[in-house]
Amino acid sequence: MKFTVKREKLQKALQRLGSIIGSRSMFPVLSNVKIEAKENSLILSTTDLEIRLSTTLEATVESPGVSTAPANKLASLVGCFVGENVIFEINEKDHINLICGTSNFKLLGLPAEDFPKEEKFEVKGEIKIKESEFKKMVGSIAYAVSADDSRKALTGILFSVKEGCLTLVATDGKRLAMQEKAIESISGGDQDVIIPLKAAKEVRRLLDGDGDLTIQLGDKQCTFIGKNFELTTKLIDGNYPNYRQVVPASFSSTVDISKSLFLNKIETVSLILSDSSSYIILHFEDNQLKLQASSVEVGEGSDMVDIAYNGELFEVSFNPVFLADPLRNCESESIRMKFNDPLNPVAIEGDEGFLYVIMPIRKK
Amino acid sequence: MKFTVKREKLQKALQRLGSIIGSRSMFPVLSNVKIEAKENSLILSTTDLEIRLSTTLEATVESPGVSTAPANKLASLVGCFVGENVIFEINEKDHINLICGTSNFKLLGLPAEDFPKEEKFEVKGEIKIKESEFKKMVGSIAYAVSADDSRKALTGILFSVKEGCLTLVATDGKRLAMQEKAIESISGGDQDVIIPLKAAKEVRRLLDGDGDLTIQLGDKQCTFIGKNFELTTKLIDGNYPNYRQVVPASFSSTVDISKSLFLNKIETVSLILSDSSSYIILHFEDNQLKLQASSVEVGEGSDMVDIAYNGELFEVSFNPVFLADPLRNCESESIRMKFNDPLNPVAIEGDEGFLYVIMPIRKK
Repeated sequence: MKFTVKREKLQKALQRLGSIIGSRSMFPVLSNVKIEAKENSLILSTTDLEIRLSTTLEATVESPGVSTAPANKLASLVGCFVGENVIFEINEKDHINLICGTSNFKLLGLPAEDFPKEEKFEVKGEIKIKESEFKKMVGSIAYAVSADDSRKALTGILFSVKEGCLTLVATDGKRLAMQEKAIESISGGDQDVIIPLKAAKEVRRLLDGDGDLTIQLGDKQCTFIGKNFELTTKLIDGNYPNYRQVVPASFSSTVDISKSLFLNKIETVSLILSDSSSYIILHFEDNQLKLQASSVEVGEGSDMVDIAYNGELFEVSFNPVFLADPLRNCESESIRMKFNDPLNPVAIEGDEGFLYVIMPIRKK
Repeated sequence: MKFTVKREKLQKALQRLGSIIGSRSMFPVLSNVKIEAKENSLILSTTDLEIRLSTTLEATVESPGVSTAPANKLASLVGCFVGENVIFEINEKDHINLICGTSNFKLLGLPAEDFPKEEKFEVKGEIKIKESEFKKMVGSIAYAVSADDSRKALTGILFSVKEGCLTLVATDGKRLAMQEKAIESISGGDQDVIIPLKAAKEVRRLLDGDGDLTIQLGDKQCTFIGKNFELTTKLIDGNYPNYRQVVPASFSSTVDISKSLFLNKIETVSLILSDSSSYIILHFEDNQLKLQASSVEVGEGSDMVDIAYNGELFEVSFNPVFLADPLRNCESESIRMKFNDPLNPVAIEGDEGFLYVIMPIRKK
C-alpha cells in the first residue's frame, strides 16, 4: 500500500477527525484513524463507537489498501512536517513509513480488520438544509440540553420533522429551548428522533461554509453529510416529553427588550450574587425594567433598561444563568418577553422561530 | 470618603492588580484591594503577603480617605459598567456605594487598618534598565527555575550585580540558563539577591512599554518601579550555587545552527517518544546534524538540519524538553552549540549575553 498526499490537506482532514477518537484502553484501535487508499482518493475514518466520522481527500495512489494509524500522533507529525507532500508506505504488518521533506518516520499501526465496521441503516427520511442555518439552529438551543444521565432522552436534542417543518428542542426540565424552521427539501414524512448532544455539537463544529447539509434519518441511526465530512451517530432511545404542552396557550403581557442591553444588565447585576443567593428580580415598571440582586456576603445592586411598558407593576425572579443563556445564544437584536403572573412559565421569543420557556423562582 | 474616577482607567488599574490577590481564608482582607483617595489621585494596592503591588491613577477627590473593597468583585463590576465615570462613596462602616450610568451598587468592604502595612526597607543598590530589555532578559531564562521547594534558593532567579553588569541566572540542577547585560545606571556596588519566580513573572507581565524600570535592592526586599506600577517582593533567603563553575572552561567543538529550524526538528522528532523513552539523539556528521528518536510503543523517526561541521562524528543524547526550552525562549536567529564529549556539559549560546548549559543523558 503506497500513496502520496498534499501535507496541508491531510493536516486539515486529520484536524477534522480529531475529536471523535475513543480513548478506551480496552480497544486500542479506537484511538487510530482508518486509512483507505483507492483509485485517486483517501478515505479517513475515526469512531468512538457512538459516532463515526469520515472525510475523503485527493491522493496519488500507487498501490491501494487499508490500514489504521495512531490518530493523534499522525496529526501531530503532519502538523510539524514542513514539506509539500507526504509519502505513505504501509506494509502487511501495518508498519507505516512516512516521508516528508527531510523527515522520515515509522509508525506502528493496527490491522484494519480490528476497526469497527460501518453499519448501514435504512434511511426513513431525508432533510436538506443550508450548513449555516443548521449551525445557527443548533447553537440557539444546545445549552438547554440536560447534563443529567438519569433521564437519557433529555441528554439529546429532539429533531422533530412535521408538515415540512424541522423543530429542534432541548430541555433540562427547568427550561426549554426550541427552534423551528420551514425546510424546502424534506422527504419521508413526519418523524421524531433524539440526537446525542455530542454528535450535534460535532456537526456544528465541522460546518464551515454555506453549502448544503443532508441529514438522513433512520430508526436507530442518523447520518449528516456535509461538504467535507460524513458523520453517523446512534440515536438516543427513549420518549421525549411533550414539549408543546410546556408552552402556555396565552399570555397577559408582552414586552420587547433590546437583547444586548438586557444581557449586559443581567450579567452586571448577577455579579453581586454569592453561593447563598442565586436569583435576580425583574421589576416591570412604568416604561422601565429594573433588575435587582443582593447577597449577605457581597452587597446589593440594581440597574435598569428602558422598555415600552405601561401595564401593572409586575415582579418576577429568575436564575440569572437560565435567563442569560438564550440571550447569549440567539442572534436576534431584540427579544420579546411574555408572561401571565410571577408563578407561571415566562416565554422569551427571538427572531425566526426561536422560543424559550423558563419557570420563575418562587421565593418563600 | 467620596471620589470620581474614569471607568476605563479604573478597569485597567484593577486588571493590573488582579494577579496579586491572596485567597487565604484566614485573612479575608487579602482578597481586597486597598483604596486610598487623596488630593487628585487614587492609590490602589493588593498583596499576598509576599508581594505588594500598587498603582496610582487620576481621580476627582471630593473627600479623601482610605478603605478596602473585594478586588475581584470590584474588577468584574467595573468591567461590566458602561458609563464614563464611576462615583465612589464610602462610609465609616466601609460600605462602598458605586454609581456608573444606570448602575447602582453597594459592596461590603473591610477596614483599611486590617490591610497589611507597607514595610519600608533600606535601599542598598539601584539599577535602571529599559522595560523591554528587562522583559527579554527574564523571558530568556525563567523556564529553567526549579519547581522543587526542597532547595528554596533554586525556586527564584538570581540577580547578580557585578562590575556594572547585571546577570540573571536560573537553574533546576539539570540545566542552567543565564543572561548577562551591561547596565548604564547602577548604584550601590556588587550585590546578589534571589527574586521569587512569581515576582519576576509578575513584573514581566506588567511591563508594556519602553520606559525605564527602576529596581531597588535591599537586604530582604526589593522594589520594581515601572511606569504604571510599583511592586515590592520579599527576597528568597539562601545561598545560590556558584553558577560560574558549571560552565566548562573550554570546548573542543563549536557549531552554529539555525534556531527555528533546529527547534522545529526537535519538536517533530520528539513526537515519536512515549513515557518509556524520553531522549533524542543528535548525530553531528559531515555538514549535517541528524536528529533521531524511537520508542517501543509508537515507532521511530529521524530528521536533519544542514550545518557547517567537519569535525569527528559525534553523538550525544538529550531530554528534548530541556534542549528545546532555550530555543523557544531566546530571540536569537541562530544559536551556537559547544561541546567536548558526550558525557560532559554542552553549552548553547545566543545573542547578547545568553548562555545555557545542559547535561547530556548517559545511556546504559
